[in-house]
Amino acid sequence: MSTGVWLVGARGSVATTAVVGAAAVAAGLTPPTGCVTESPDFAGTRLPELGDLVFGGHDVAGTGLAKRAEQLVRSGVVPAGLPGLVADDLAAADAEIRPGVHVPVDARDQATAAAALVSDIAAFRERRGLDRVVVINVASTEPPAGEHPAHRSLDALSAALASGTDVLPASSLYAYAALTAGCPYVDFTPSTGARLPALDELARRRGVPYAGRDGKTGETLLKSVLAPMFAQRALRVRAWSGTNLLGGGDGATLADPAAAAAKNASKSLVVGRTLGYPVDGEVHIDYVADLGDWKTAWDHVVFDGFLGARMSLQFTWQGCDSALAAPLVLDLVRLMALAHASGVAGPVSELAFFFKDPVGADGTTGGPGVDHALATQYETLRSWAASR
Amino acid sequence: MSTGVWLVGARGSVATTAVVGAAAVAAGLTPPTGCVTESPDFAGTRLPELGDLVFGGHDVAGTGLAKRAEQLVRSGVVPAGLPGLVADDLAAADAEIRPGVHVPVDARDQATAAAALVSDIAAFRERRGLDRVVVINVASTEPPAGEHPAHRSLDALSAALASGTDVLPASSLYAYAALTAGCPYVDFTPSTGARLPALDELARRRGVPYAGRDGKTGETLLKSVLAPMFAQRALRVRAWSGTNLLGGGDGATLADPAAAAAKNASKSLVVGRTLGYPVDGEVHIDYVADLGDWKTAWDHVVFDGFLGARMSLQFTWQGCDSALAAPLVLDLVRLMALAHASGVAGPVSELAFFFKDPVGADGTTGGPGVDHALATQYETLRSWAASR
Amino acid sequence: MSTGVWLVGARGSVATTAVVGAAAVAAGLTPPTGCVTESPDFAGTRLPELGDLVFGGHDVAGTGLAKRAEQLVRSGVVPAGLPGLVADDLAAADAEIRPGVHVPVDARDQATAAAALVSDIAAFRERRGLDRVVVINVASTEPPAGEHPAHRSLDALSAALASGTDVLPASSLYAYAALTAGCPYVDFTPSTGARLPALDELARRRGVPYAGRDGKTGETLLKSVLAPMFAQRALRVRAWSGTNLLGGGDGATLADPAAAAAKNASKSLVVGRTLGYPVDGEVHIDYVADLGDWKTAWDHVVFDGFLGARMSLQFTWQGCDSALAAPLVLDLVRLMALAHASGVAGPVSELAFFFKDPVGADGTTGGPGVDHALATQYETLRSWAASR
Amino acid sequence: MSTGVWLVGARGSVATTAVVGAAAVAAGLTPPTGCVTESPDFAGTRLPELGDLVFGGHDVAGTGLAKRAEQLVRSGVVPAGLPGLVADDLAAADAEIRPGVHVPVDARDQATAAAALVSDIAAFRERRGLDRVVVINVASTEPPAGEHPAHRSLDALSAALASGTDVLPASSLYAYAALTAGCPYVDFTPSTGARLPALDELARRRGVPYAGRDGKTGETLLKSVLAPMFAQRALRVRAWSGTNLLGGGDGATLADPAAAAAKNASKSLVVGRTLGYPVDGEVHIDYVADLGDWKTAWDHVVFDGFLGARMSLQFTWQGCDSALAAPLVLDLVRLMALAHASGVAGPVSELAFFFKDPVGADGTTGGPGVDHALATQYETLRSWAASR
Repeated sequence: MSTGVWLVGARGSVATTAVVGAAAVAAGLTPPTGCVTESPDFAGTRLPELGDLVFGGHDVAGTGLAKRAEQLVRSGVVPAGLPGLVADDLAAADAEIRPGVHVPVDARDQATAAAALVSDIAAFRERRGLDRVVVINVASTEPPAGEHPAHRSLDALSAALASGTDVLPASSLYAYAALTAGCPYVDFTPSTGARLPALDELARRRGVPYAGRDGKTGETLLKSVLAPMFAQRALRVRAWSGTNLLGGGDGATLADPAAAAAKNASKSLVVGRTLGYPVDGEVHIDYVADLGDWKTAWDHVVFDGFLGARMSLQFTWQGCDSALAAPLVLDLVRLMALAHASGVAGPVSELAFFFKDPVGADGTTGGPGVDHALATQYETLRSWAASR
Repeated sequence: MSTGVWLVGARGSVATTAVVGAAAVAAGLTPPTGCVTESPDFAGTRLPELGDLVFGGHDVAGTGLAKRAEQLVRSGVVPAGLPGLVADDLAAADAEIRPGVHVPVDARDQATAAAALVSDIAAFRERRGLDRVVVINVASTEPPAGEHPAHRSLDALSAALASGTDVLPASSLYAYAALTAGCPYVDFTPSTGARLPALDELARRRGVPYAGRDGKTGETLLKSVLAPMFAQRALRVRAWSGTNLLGGGDGATLADPAAAAAKNASKSLVVGRTLGYPVDGEVHIDYVADLGDWKTAWDHVVFDGFLGARMSLQFTWQGCDSALAAPLVLDLVRLMALAHASGVAGPVSELAFFFKDPVGADGTTGGPGVDHALATQYETLRSWAASR
Repeated sequence: MSTGVWLVGARGSVATTAVVGAAAVAAGLTPPTGCVTESPDFAGTRLPELGDLVFGGHDVAGTGLAKRAEQLVRSGVVPAGLPGLVADDLAAADAEIRPGVHVPVDARDQATAAAALVSDIAAFRERRGLDRVVVINVASTEPPAGEHPAHRSLDALSAALASGTDVLPASSLYAYAALTAGCPYVDFTPSTGARLPALDELARRRGVPYAGRDGKTGETLLKSVLAPMFAQRALRVRAWSGTNLLGGGDGATLADPAAAAAKNASKSLVVGRTLGYPVDGEVHIDYVADLGDWKTAWDHVVFDGFLGARMSLQFTWQGCDSALAAPLVLDLVRLMALAHASGVAGPVSELAFFFKDPVGADGTTGGPGVDHALATQYETLRSWAASR
Repeated sequence: MSTGVWLVGARGSVATTAVVGAAAVAAGLTPPTGCVTESPDFAGTRLPELGDLVFGGHDVAGTGLAKRAEQLVRSGVVPAGLPGLVADDLAAADAEIRPGVHVPVDARDQATAAAALVSDIAAFRERRGLDRVVVINVASTEPPAGEHPAHRSLDALSAALASGTDVLPASSLYAYAALTAGCPYVDFTPSTGARLPALDELARRRGVPYAGRDGKTGETLLKSVLAPMFAQRALRVRAWSGTNLLGGGDGATLADPAAAAAKNASKSLVVGRTLGYPVDGEVHIDYVADLGDWKTAWDHVVFDGFLGARMSLQFTWQGCDSALAAPLVLDLVRLMALAHASGVAGPVSELAFFFKDPVGADGTTGGPGVDHALATQYETLRSWAASR
């Protein structure tokens, strides 16, 4: 199964780490640490091999992948010497990167811009002789987009685009292009992406699967195992407060309160939904430039035990965002290729394990039917993959 | 179903908190926070009501429960004013406490001492007209006991006791008495208790269930959700270090390196078993007298992500031992009453959710058949309780 | 030296704890933990005795001190049983509490309101035959007050008040009244208080000392020893981030972003001033109702060592605000009584040890002449007290 | 002032980092972060320039400095590319490294071995035309050495060595050689080194200064500012517990309980001495191989405030041992050169700022005359350096 990976934000840290890492693992230079689908639980599934993935993508930045990889060496994400060993792979991926769109400043109307994106992806599939291309958005987080009537149905959206009206945020324009091109699409960020009724309709009509959203790599990952623990032990959580310090591109984007709002909405779901009652406490996202690709999350949980005895749990998670996200990107590509190959269309709710704000079977997120407990999500994922 | 609760260590902090709390919850004075079996997942099961439990027990200390409850008010475990509101319940339980045995300094031989314990329990059951009595060991942790040939079979044990040879540690003497009296028995501490082939045989022969061991209330509880998270995300744990600071009686006991060794052996199982590879790192238990009934655990986990990026997780758990343990004691009593009522004999491996070092179906602990992941343990518990 | 203590916010947690504690220490019921001036370094100074302090004050709330003390027992600040042992002292102080002013909703003009406050304080001094009365503001934090031309000189202020124009925030109205009554005045909060040129002039003209502002009891206290450590070791601090979780009255007040702004401005001074260069990082103050009188501060410091090696320090401070502040209130009263007795007029910059945003010798705060290093501040304090 | 630096353990991480760093700072490639004597407070003192230092030393290991520097790049201590830029400096230092002695397995008697060490140092001084050579021990920590009567006076020591009796631990043999060669000597480790009455006598008789011991780079550094804070605020510390996780060579050495005992004795001094009363709590040192040159210290302090309110402080320090120690090594060399140039003989107690267990003016450590508060130590250091 020859599978293309089309990265929206192909020159970002996550994308670069994914390309370097896929090549390094395939060459046996490093173990597949962090790749869920490489674990024994997924032996026997019909996933494409890591070494068979072919990379390309869109980006508005021009710095080459080799240079980006060296920057990641300096910030401690990629081991010294590794970029040189996979230089051919980086060059091959670099040659498949095309200019992305700038929303709202692109000179073309969105229909024209989307057609160009579709054409880039289709040409990649053709040129490289790929069975399918999975498109995955790993670009920086957008500010929350306003609603528009054209989002409500595919007909309304088509009409708006045909009339030259710009109605989509950038992430949704990429999703629109991917689905139009017949490609499985994944929202790895909290941006709007495919999460519009019009695009859900498009996916179902085109018979392609989509998944998302917002990769779960740190604080929320921990919440997804700790909140069930409090629930199962019948301990009453009084307040759950969190502070996230992050540098890098995503940190700078999230320093914008509007973008942070989107992220925070994703982050706050797990606790309340899992416990079944509202929980006090704020979540802060601070941009600390000197942290680079690293992030630190501190959470403080106040809870009651028997007879109201007041207790607390604190944790500090110190992680490298790109090194946590990149293997999940590879997992998602493989799993979406499997979904596509087995004829799944529309939202793939069984991939909730990977996301902060997972899409449900009805194409909406945050609904009551979505389980946020990691253990349950893992079991769902494992049995889904085994049964394809 | 009228159920007796026979507490070994009936005047300790955990026992006193359990008696105060059962009365307070039954009277509607406080919510059943921390009681797993009061959660909606256990509605519809055939568990005895908290308000129907009748308390008694053995202890070598003479301080009355009312005074012990006031001490727990001063150390912040029990709310001010509450002991007065449940004074009758405390007095009733106090009236059912009998002197325990001192091992090795008891003047009687162990056969005689055991007979006295059996007689105390049986008289309690008779006097109070109880359907059954669940015996649960919440006494201080013992130093690890030496092995003895008489432990290997019930015949050998019976012969040794008949000959006046003392071969059992105190916890096992209590377990022997409980099982002999036909009572379900629970090891809430890491002491040897029922974990001898001779006693496993006795339980099966008498047709009574037993469970254990070592209630999981803090650091290990967290390990049982965090270790599966690392495993499911394919993150490689390099080292897991822990320091536990605790005061109170258990802290003083565990300041003895020999007793701490027993505790540490229990504590170290979860991580290695769940991850499937040995993990570096030590676990310390320090006695800090001024912490009283409170304990603080700090754990530091070093792990690798993709491409070997080195990351870490730290947590600090600040809990009140008695307030964490007491509701689990009530849960275990109710569940063991159900097990007994439904004819279960021998080890109840389905209660692993409660224990650091859970007994497997074959009566041994630490075996490969025991799952240490909390989510799996909870599901097992829930479905077991529902099917009785 | 008979000394009165006039508490603005006399029924708050800090004031109540101070009254309970002064009585308890004087009666030998508890050691003077947290009272700086009771340490051997202050033996031989001419400070009034704790047992000689006479309490009174203003408050807009009506709950009696005995009841407030019982509330503090329930929240774990005051030991159970203690309020009963000092009931007479609480009743005596309660009898000396007078209604405070509500700004801006007081029906009277500020000149009239101030005259009433002066009269209350003077009557207290007279009635109790006191050598002097130290007024100290321990009320809730105000939102930052706007500037007004009448703040710039005593003449302008007097003219504005005489004309019936309301120009002062509540804290400054109390400061005005205290200084007018010839009383030493202390700002224990970050509110404006005496920090207006007009009031500085008033203090100097009346020959009374004043001090402030914003008692240093937690995060900032730690910063005042840690920032000098980084400076002396020539380690380069890259970012210093902090999150403060607090309940109680002050927490609720600071949930208002405007009030938090005042607090944060105080809190951010220490690090930048001590290090001599601007430091990245935000400080959050979150209101977590269930924390009650307790607060938790988490700070995260990123710094560089030799060759740019990136390192970090984190701390978590879990303290009881009232129990940290109350003994400092007693210290300040004693020290200000000494200042007054020895003829000091205007700002007492030698008390910087106690404050987040200490007033300098010129009556301004935040100036370059103010040393924020705790060790230097302590030495200054000690030698100042010894030389009076 | 041309100054030689003779490193005992010249191929260790600390020594290698010091050589790389001195060259890099002198060449303007990196700022002198972490070098205390480069701060403005030391402008105007008569210290030798960093660029004028000439390096050599003893080591039992054979790996060259260039290779060691590359290992430090891989572990994140030294920036990628830097070793290449200072290759000449590394080669020059490497050429001046001589084989050290193995105690107790050296084939020669200690008098012969010492003579060889003296000869190595003297030849270096001669060959490079140096005004003086400062010898500093940065080798791995020794297990605590037994006492011997020959340690008590120089005569006894000389007699023992003359008779072919081996009486010195390795660190003291190096100290003996350095002092015999007329060189200032510094103990940067907790090993015995110069801390024998016989060697104190030798230093005074030869007119050379010595200093030590055990560089203060992490947990103890923090204790030296936090303990004074608790003391000055009259807060009563109830327990101070600590866990240190470290990898690298020193971690492995300290995994040996005997060596850890020496380290722990040094570490425990600060708190008790500063507070003036004994404090409960243990200090653990755990070897965690995967931490490499990095170390993590977690400290937990329980303390009482007013009315006995129980509070806590925790901190986590994550540092790179070599990057913390190396600049202090350079500071000590410069300061000891100054001491020597200005005629100081015997212990230099004014350098206590740098050490966990500082030597007092009488040549002993841990005595009541030694101040452990960092702020006081800094002021002493600063004024001492300014007055030379």
